[in-house]
Amino acid sequence: MAQKPSIPKGTRDFLPDVMMRRNYIFDTIKTVFKRFENLSTLMGKYGDEGDKLLFRILNSGDFMSGVEQNGEPLDSQKLSSKICEKGLRYDLTVPFARFVVQYRDQIAFPFKRYQMQPVWRADRPQKGRYREFYQCDVDIIGSDSLLNEAELVQIVDEVFNNLKINVVLKINNRKVLAGIAEYIGKPDALVDITVAIDKLDKIGIDAVNAELAEKGLDNEAIAKLQPILFMQGTAREKMAQLKSLMSGIEIGTKGIEELETLFNYLDAMGLRIEYELDLTLARGLNYYTGAIFEVKAKDVAMGSISGGGRYDNLTGIFGLPNVSGVGISFGADRIYDVLNELNLFPEKNAENTEVIFLNFGKNEEIYCLPYLQQLRRQGINAEIYPDASKIQKQMKYADQRNIPVVVMAGETEINDKTFTVKWMKEGRQESVKAANLLEIIKK
Amino acid sequence: MAQKPSIPKGTRDFLPDVMMRRNYIFDTIKTVFKRFENLSTLMGKYGDEGDKLLFRILNSGDFMSGVEQNGEPLDSQKLSSKICEKGLRYDLTVPFARFVVQYRDQIAFPFKRYQMQPVWRADRPQKGRYREFYQCDVDIIGSDSLLNEAELVQIVDEVFNNLKINVVLKINNRKVLAGIAEYIGKPDALVDITVAIDKLDKIGIDAVNAELAEKGLDNEAIAKLQPILFMQGTAREKMAQLKSLMSGIEIGTKGIEELETLFNYLDAMGLRIEYELDLTLARGLNYYTGAIFEVKAKDVAMGSISGGGRYDNLTGIFGLPNVSGVGISFGADRIYDVLNELNLFPEKNAENTEVIFLNFGKNEEIYCLPYLQQLRRQGINAEIYPDASKIQKQMKYADQRNIPVVVMAGETEINDKTFTVKWMKEGRQESVKAANLLEIIKK
Repeated sequence: MAQKPSIPKGTRDFLPDVMMRRNYIFDTIKTVFKRFENLSTLMGKYGDEGDKLLFRILNSGDFMSGVEQNGEPLDSQKLSSKICEKGLRYDLTVPFARFVVQYRDQIAFPFKRYQMQPVWRADRPQKGRYREFYQCDVDIIGSDSLLNEAELVQIVDEVFNNLKINVVLKINNRKVLAGIAEYIGKPDALVDITVAIDKLDKIGIDAVNAELAEKGLDNEAIAKLQPILFMQGTAREKMAQLKSLMSGIEIGTKGIEELETLFNYLDAMGLRIEYELDLTLARGLNYYTGAIFEVKAKDVAMGSISGGGRYDNLTGIFGLPNVSGVGISFGADRIYDVLNELNLFPEKNAENTEVIFLNFGKNEEIYCLPYLQQLRRQGINAEIYPDASKIQKQMKYADQRNIPVVVMAGETEINDKTFTVKWMKEGRQESVKAANLLEIIKK
Repeated sequence: MAQKPSIPKGTRDFLPDVMMRRNYIFDTIKTVFKRFENLSTLMGKYGDEGDKLLFRILNSGDFMSGVEQNGEPLDSQKLSSKICEKGLRYDLTVPFARFVVQYRDQIAFPFKRYQMQPVWRADRPQKGRYREFYQCDVDIIGSDSLLNEAELVQIVDEVFNNLKINVVLKINNRKVLAGIAEYIGKPDALVDITVAIDKLDKIGIDAVNAELAEKGLDNEAIAKLQPILFMQGTAREKMAQLKSLMSGIEIGTKGIEELETLFNYLDAMGLRIEYELDLTLARGLNYYTGAIFEVKAKDVAMGSISGGGRYDNLTGIFGLPNVSGVGISFGADRIYDVLNELNLFPEKNAENTEVIFLNFGKNEEIYCLPYLQQLRRQGINAEIYPDASKIQKQMKYADQRNIPVVVMAGETEINDKTFTVKWMKEGRQESVKAANLLEIIKK
């Protein structure tokens, strides 16, 4: 036998049952998104260079023809920029920004879109990290109204409610973080501070403080930060405390106003989702400019399964400044793990074949086909075993596929215009008039 | 402004309305496929080298480190095999074969799968030919029963019936073609003959005969071929004529038997689709071993919009010989063109936002949100304009998106607990009790 077939490291095949489960997630998310926006967009691949994790596509044809070779050995980095013009999508955000800029005259703003597709990263593969994985993004761009944030929270609520996953939505605001940095007297240390406090759950308060000290924060600043890190209470209660701390700090006060407006929207919408204000939540801070979201599953230990935030200048990189947007991304692979761990996937049979006609030979086939049609036209997942193999083999197949109803027709049945129907679960078997097959199976 | 953003040559962006239409096609096909099989599979990318049209992915990291450089200029072809281990999917068939071989112990045969995803070819882009395009394949592998062919025809019937495209299904059989080559005394010229007659529609009979002569067929052989090329009548009538011609020619007779069995199945299934026996139909001959299919739209001049056939040794390339399969592929891009040309796409509003609440400010937003929720929970596509912009601007937006129902609430409405509902098509406007909004809009 030839060399064992395989796939590129860090990519995966999905066997049918896994794929069925993945589709369940995608369909659920998609259905929800569709309810919230009627626009869906497939983005083009982008040609970003320089990013080490980006998979590059070799120019086709004689790609070396343009490369000057003077006998010096060629260096990978220099060469790759000469022989590659395309790259695989690294995420969905940059192509989306490019798309918005390129088609801004044809898009009605505020523009909403959802997008689900694989992206690729030349990362070292490990558990839960793949080189090919799916992103599910929804973004609303061209409006700085906080109703858009509320809209995304609603989508999150709907998705996880439909998937039956209990989640808590952690909310923060970059302006509040900036305000905190200012409050403790270190406005310039904003990034250092947030990078550190973002790790609080993982490394604990001592390590966080050590890191802050290392970054040059004096004891006074660190001391002032502690009550904020351990602030207790509901979102509203925390807001009250924050307000007094932020009084006189412009950016912090703006952030609090934004949070307050958002919370008012969420309460007015009467969402089911549980949300909390998490002042240690930072995420890709340098990227976000307002609200920051993160979703955690409550009944299982797992990183965030969804997250996003407000970005005020995403399209700037493509020459269209000051277009504000807000987006959220669902981690399909982690959601899959959560559903698996909590055993929340629906009965596989939902998509399964419900009825199989066994195959006893040519005449029997011809006899069965019209009835097979009848069932299918009624939306029943029915099939006929394609070969007149040994009945044991056909039964084994029906069993493997756990098909609940097996229909048989041999010479006797043909002569009597009947079928023998076997109900696999009960093991019961009965003879039914061919004319009644549909209604009997429908029951 | 920065350099104008663009996408790789031969790839496309899809604006929302186009994407909606593409989804309509994909959803329709998918729905049908789901009815016929409960297995769907996402294939891994494959690393096939040597194919000029294959897009290669440059190894990440210091890809040149392993390449010996002795001062000699490096040649593209040799180099690419050293610096690329991955390639973009060129089609869905080869990855499918690889998948079947790799997972053969975990798959229940006969194995059916459908697959819809983009593939990439480093081809010269031109009208209707893209470097990134979608393939929709369905295959049944691990059974040589002709019921599988019938199954595929049924899917074709269902898909185009649901898309409301009138089609004719052309059917042929590679064994019959072999029989014809033998009948005219040129069994070894099978490929030359089929390549030539495959062009009959395009170049006409004289050119075909010229080509055959050029390929070394004598006048007698060419003369014997003519009545076959111009054979008239229904599939059954042609079969009768063929039978006599093929008497004593084993492979041809086998092919006729296969066609007859298939036709019997199709008739027993009572399909709506019109099918015909087309003896000039060849397609990827060297690839197919039995049935050959091609679907043409009747009401528009366009190449085939679907096609496939039986292949007896697809998995052989991966070391698993003698696994017979049959598959058919739908040309999503051409189907799109057909639907467009015949104006067969459903009302865009199907997926559109049905109701929009205009935005008069913070209090009005809070007033509207619970009712927005109410509508959404009832499955109505509703949204609220995110900003309290000028009403003309909001109305223009509702108009652009052609949203049929506009709901307004200002101070007066809030005090009276009412809404002003504007029906855009009729231009009619009415005041409704907030409590009645849902039922009134539902009508």
